[in-house]
Amino acid sequence: MSDRALRRATPIFPWSLTLPLVVQKYGGSSVADAAALRRVAHRVAETARAGNDVVVTVSAMGDTTDDLIELATSVSAAPDAREMDILLTAGERIAMALLAMAIGSEGVPAQAFTGPQAGVITTEHHGRARIIDVAPGRLQKAIAQGKVAIVAGFQGLHPESQDVTTLGRGGSDTTAVALAAALGADVCEIYTDVDGVFTADPRIVPAARKLARITYDEMMDLAASGAKVLMPRCVEYARRYNVPIHVRSSFSGLEGTWVVGDTVEGETMEEPIIAGVAHDRSEAKVTVIGLPDVPGTAARLFESVARADINIDMIVQNVSATETGLTDISFTLPATRLDDAISAIQSDADGIGYQELRTDVSIGKISLVGAGMRSNSGVSALFFGAMRDAGVNIEMISTSDIRISVITRADKVDDAVRAVHTAFELDSLEGEAVVYGGSGR
Amino acid sequence: MSDRALRRATPIFPWSLTLPLVVQKYGGSSVADAAALRRVAHRVAETARAGNDVVVTVSAMGDTTDDLIELATSVSAAPDAREMDILLTAGERIAMALLAMAIGSEGVPAQAFTGPQAGVITTEHHGRARIIDVAPGRLQKAIAQGKVAIVAGFQGLHPESQDVTTLGRGGSDTTAVALAAALGADVCEIYTDVDGVFTADPRIVPAARKLARITYDEMMDLAASGAKVLMPRCVEYARRYNVPIHVRSSFSGLEGTWVVGDTVEGETMEEPIIAGVAHDRSEAKVTVIGLPDVPGTAARLFESVARADINIDMIVQNVSATETGLTDISFTLPATRLDDAISAIQSDADGIGYQELRTDVSIGKISLVGAGMRSNSGVSALFFGAMRDAGVNIEMISTSDIRISVITRADKVDDAVRAVHTAFELDSLEGEAVVYGGSGR
Repeated sequence: MSDRALRRATPIFPWSLTLPLVVQKYGGSSVADAAALRRVAHRVAETARAGNDVVVTVSAMGDTTDDLIELATSVSAAPDAREMDILLTAGERIAMALLAMAIGSEGVPAQAFTGPQAGVITTEHHGRARIIDVAPGRLQKAIAQGKVAIVAGFQGLHPESQDVTTLGRGGSDTTAVALAAALGADVCEIYTDVDGVFTADPRIVPAARKLARITYDEMMDLAASGAKVLMPRCVEYARRYNVPIHVRSSFSGLEGTWVVGDTVEGETMEEPIIAGVAHDRSEAKVTVIGLPDVPGTAARLFESVARADINIDMIVQNVSATETGLTDISFTLPATRLDDAISAIQSDADGIGYQELRTDVSIGKISLVGAGMRSNSGVSALFFGAMRDAGVNIEMISTSDIRISVITRADKVDDAVRAVHTAFELDSLEGEAVVYGGSGR
Repeated sequence: MSDRALRRATPIFPWSLTLPLVVQKYGGSSVADAAALRRVAHRVAETARAGNDVVVTVSAMGDTTDDLIELATSVSAAPDAREMDILLTAGERIAMALLAMAIGSEGVPAQAFTGPQAGVITTEHHGRARIIDVAPGRLQKAIAQGKVAIVAGFQGLHPESQDVTTLGRGGSDTTAVALAAALGADVCEIYTDVDGVFTADPRIVPAARKLARITYDEMMDLAASGAKVLMPRCVEYARRYNVPIHVRSSFSGLEGTWVVGDTVEGETMEEPIIAGVAHDRSEAKVTVIGLPDVPGTAARLFESVARADINIDMIVQNVSATETGLTDISFTLPATRLDDAISAIQSDADGIGYQELRTDVSIGKISLVGAGMRSNSGVSALFFGAMRDAGVNIEMISTSDIRISVITRADKVDDAVRAVHTAFELDSLEGEAVVYGGSGR
């Protein structure tokens, strides 16, 4: 808190001496129609009336983005990426203008800004641009005039081309965090259709509990392991600039989950051992059989995949069969990129020198995440024991200092998640749902 | 033609030495859905393949603008004009991106530009901005790269605020003409859902003929008199910069109507006496009774109306009744502004000093337009004779050197238009539909 307060208290931002600054982000389902927009407008107005400066990031309404993509594919088999960004940014444009109007009719002055107008500077990569910098001069001016600033999420400006860019799906969360960092906001509130971050997917584990608090590291690993509530890039941005995120429901007034650093006001927080169990059924597995067991084989294989711009998740290399001088390598990747990966490997078949390629799309991944794992022995033993007791066969294993992930059959994922959730005593006792993990801040 | 060619041949635009430049404008009904967009894309691509440089201005698809206005009114009783412009400009943004993609999939490279990106500089009046200047550097660069440039119609940038503005309904035509003027285009093609400009509304006069050619002055008067095919401001812009407009159908390959100056290649064109008959049922009449017949009365009356930003059309003052020293004034105005006008007059009732206000919304206007009128006597006599023979009573008269307009009862308009059209021998003989008025250019 103190460093942010200091930043906002510098003389060039005199208005920051007065009111706390809250950045709020509302996703597409929170602004799906006019009635939903009015509800969001009311919440924003209430936040302003409670004595906060407010900056709001908004996504396109409901299914707008999907509808626009469908239109694009109906007029072009391969739409140009630059024009696609022009098209898709119309969605946030509509939402931000309507939200500003709706807040205005609550009696609170509001102004809407596109990503470029808000000073969101990005790389040139249309459809998957990264935020380089935020120059929030126009937003600061609006705030100084007592206005709520509404900013289109998901978009920015590539300064050399002067063209609008999009950050890709989930980019609105990153916009919100980037604005919060640039403005030295006290909190970045991410509004969503769930109550916060849970110890597991409540659709699979009805006894899953809402976490009151989670660290950036844990949230990063949960997000990378399949938890959909936040995107890893957004959490990474928040961690880098130490922006406190509050994930909460736009349909209730409940406290949600705080995503914060592992120290608060200089003191290390007491950490629970386990934050949660994540799962992911969107990956596929490739096994490359009969590779020469000589230096450089793996490099050659993964260079060919990397050239196709495919992110690899887990990698396992079998112990070499010394009598043949051959080995096998298995790896996982997003199932949507499987065909591209196979093409990439086959196109360098001679260079890599394998005997056979096998693919498997019926896999699932279960991940256990918790910063307290670092200092607790016995976590792995308990985890694998729970899997065994549930009759779940483990096909691949990968670990980091705060995460254990395994690959199983896809149809075993639900059983595995429930078994691990119970084994680590994460199941909620009645009435205990919001007390886990501390007081929040 | 020669001055435009000269402009395009200046050394700073070297590419202009090579290909003719065509600016095309497609309205909302021409791009109502994906199939319509593909048809337009094909026509644009054909124009480019025929050896032209092409710049396209496009409106929002179908009912998009109306839908967005409805959304705005559902979240705010009085939407802010700045935010309204942000909202409405999303419509053209969608259309221009999709059209660029569709042209690209025809194998012709195309790039889309917003009004601000295209260098359309306007006044600050949100919702009714006027174009001040066009700085078409980005368009020229795209053309030089062999690309079709797609430009969002109806919008521009107010440079001081760096906010997007809209030109108001019909602004897309003006955008097209302004771009054609700035780029020194050889022609500005306005595509619409009718075949061109007709001697009368074909729904009222089935024998109405398509004009092959009409002068700017005639088109201005027809447009101001109720002909909906072009807006007066667009024609005025074209006249000022001598941009030839070709009004034609986006559903056929037929020649439409050329709107040009009254000299072509230095020679004055032979002019038909009458270009057409226009009508308008959207006006209302106000009669102010018992005004003091002293200097300054009319000024005071119309100053009060002007302050409400209302455009007056026709004005008639009765011959003063000398025994009372009082007179009456009648004037017409858009019926949509009648209430505002009455409020404005009533609020200055003491200053104006009238006895009574009467209003009438059941009026219609019939206008006869033709540049040849200037040198032909007997036009008025024939006009009024036709009205008399059709049993139409005339309530007000107004004339210019190329136009006669009268006010009648609204339910007499159709009879009056048909009678005048026949009297001036404008009715088409079978097969003669496109020969009237010369060869076009």
